[in-house]
Amino acid sequence: MNPAHDQVRAIVWCEDALELLDQRQLPGALVYQRLTTAAEVAQAIGDMVVRGAPAIGITAAYGVVLAARARYAESAPNWQALIATDLAMLAAARPTAVNLFWALRRMARVIAAGCSHPAQRLLAEARAIHVEDIAANQRMGELGAALLTERGSVLTHCNTGSLATGGYGTALGVIRYGYAAGLIERVYADETRPWLQGARLTAWELVQDGIPVTLLADAAAAALMRQGEVRWAMVGADRIAANGDVANKIGTYHLAVAARYHGVRLMVVAPITTVDMSIASGADIPIEQRAAEELLTLGGQPIAAAGAQVWNPSFDVTPAALVDALVTDRGVVLAPDAVKMARLMAGTT
Amino acid sequence: MNPAHDQVRAIVWCEDALELLDQRQLPGALVYQRLTTAAEVAQAIGDMVVRGAPAIGITAAYGVVLAARARYAESAPNWQALIATDLAMLAAARPTAVNLFWALRRMARVIAAGCSHPAQRLLAEARAIHVEDIAANQRMGELGAALLTERGSVLTHCNTGSLATGGYGTALGVIRYGYAAGLIERVYADETRPWLQGARLTAWELVQDGIPVTLLADAAAAALMRQGEVRWAMVGADRIAANGDVANKIGTYHLAVAARYHGVRLMVVAPITTVDMSIASGADIPIEQRAAEELLTLGGQPIAAAGAQVWNPSFDVTPAALVDALVTDRGVVLAPDAVKMARLMAGTT
Repeated sequence: MNPAHDQVRAIVWCEDALELLDQRQLPGALVYQRLTTAAEVAQAIGDMVVRGAPAIGITAAYGVVLAARARYAESAPNWQALIATDLAMLAAARPTAVNLFWALRRMARVIAAGCSHPAQRLLAEARAIHVEDIAANQRMGELGAALLTERGSVLTHCNTGSLATGGYGTALGVIRYGYAAGLIERVYADETRPWLQGARLTAWELVQDGIPVTLLADAAAAALMRQGEVRWAMVGADRIAANGDVANKIGTYHLAVAARYHGVRLMVVAPITTVDMSIASGADIPIEQRAAEELLTLGGQPIAAAGAQVWNPSFDVTPAALVDALVTDRGVVLAPDAVKMARLMAGTT
Repeated sequence: MNPAHDQVRAIVWCEDALELLDQRQLPGALVYQRLTTAAEVAQAIGDMVVRGAPAIGITAAYGVVLAARARYAESAPNWQALIATDLAMLAAARPTAVNLFWALRRMARVIAAGCSHPAQRLLAEARAIHVEDIAANQRMGELGAALLTERGSVLTHCNTGSLATGGYGTALGVIRYGYAAGLIERVYADETRPWLQGARLTAWELVQDGIPVTLLADAAAAALMRQGEVRWAMVGADRIAANGDVANKIGTYHLAVAARYHGVRLMVVAPITTVDMSIASGADIPIEQRAAEELLTLGGQPIAAAGAQVWNPSFDVTPAALVDALVTDRGVVLAPDAVKMARLMAGTT
């Protein structure tokens, strides 16, 4: 029942370097960047060569491997102290996705344990983070698809597929699983302005998989829902607060409001590593503001009037009350709230 | 109290030809197309050289002048019969904005009355339609601004300004009036995918007027409303049904749903010529589907994955129940419904 996954690999460790598929150039060009330093990795995360909360975490973990190699060569006795600045630099690359900080903390624990071949040991840890993420996605695909009680179409926002994760995808993993199971007829994909993750990345992944995909302008989603064909809206998450509030790509909240209005159910699909129990509610999640140029230009060409100001938050917060199902690799939470979230998190310890 | 209006002129009758500002090229280039035949006018409307419901109506009226000149030269005795095909061609240029059909019916009445110098008589009628529209906009600006009971920011969608009308604007007319009266602090403008009327046209008009304007991605509007700064969402209309349902640029309905959810009031601003009492409800308004290329390409460059299908309705329908105020040149209707609409329309006869 588990659909094959031979999707594109966005993050590849190859002969002592990290190769990242440059997602800024998709779908026009399939170009990998070869990175050999932690500074290059931090830059690539900040510039969105790679994006998607789980993918950012995995990338940062490999960045720590590169940092350890350099610091150990610089000073075998002192590398653990020296690498602290690299960890801080990687942590500062983007502020919202908590998977970044989670992956760095996990790598920091290995650093603290010490080892005579730190780069090897850290590479094994980064690979584990990567492999575990793919497994988590497949588990979530199965759990999420089990919620689809009738065949129908779904709507998704941004990109939550192989490109946004270690592989397979979060919301797109559920879609892949659900399509293979005959429960999903068609995927409607918001183009997802300003970065066009839906038009450029999600549509590209789905076309490659042979899953019927229809693009629409983000603001057309409500009109689509009104037609009654869409059963579920499915999205990922960049950080989930202790009360179940969800920070995700800008527009997710707008989608959630429209979904609730139309009786379309909202499914948030994210690995447990996206939950941040130190954040009480979505109001405390740091929301990244990105450059005005994302709205004012496209492909370097101006597309808007000169002189206009721009409000360009990269994420918004959807209150838990609008979430019908939160699907994690540790289980499904229906109508999440603080009590259910605490129960979910306690289930592991 | 009536603010000066020296805005750009999108529709100019000049030495026996119609000159249209090519809105596809704004704001990068200020280029006028010179049209001398009705076929060219129909083409220009279909290709969106000119857009905006009132502007389309005015343009079509001038198109009839060009048609009459040619048909009268072709056959002075038969021009009234011959011109019927030109009227049909102009009416087929775009399906949703009812102002087009209204203007053509008004011109047809002049044609039916007959005249020894039809082009002159029809030009006078087209000019009257044009001038009356500007006056209607100024009246709506005054009426709409009177609804602003406290200073605050407003959010608008698409372009409803000088470029969309005979001049001054519908929703943008209210914004101009309200800003001059000190009641509007800042205008948030949805970029309005796929055609980017907000980014290209509304921002351009407001920058020229020195009115503070902040662009945002369409799907960011709900997150903006949640911040509490926006008091009103203000939009135009392409057709208003007898029950008060409003067809307008795709995304208006999404905005209306989010506005209601956040307690932001929705103001629809449209001349009485946009009301179509022959249409019982929004469900019966023909919604134009435009080419997939509007979403798949930008400036001729591909911006989406090849192979994706596209759903690209140019308009959506906002139910009257979501409209807080309908501002027409004949008066304001709060919470419009079929009874109030009938009363509004009867008020004139």
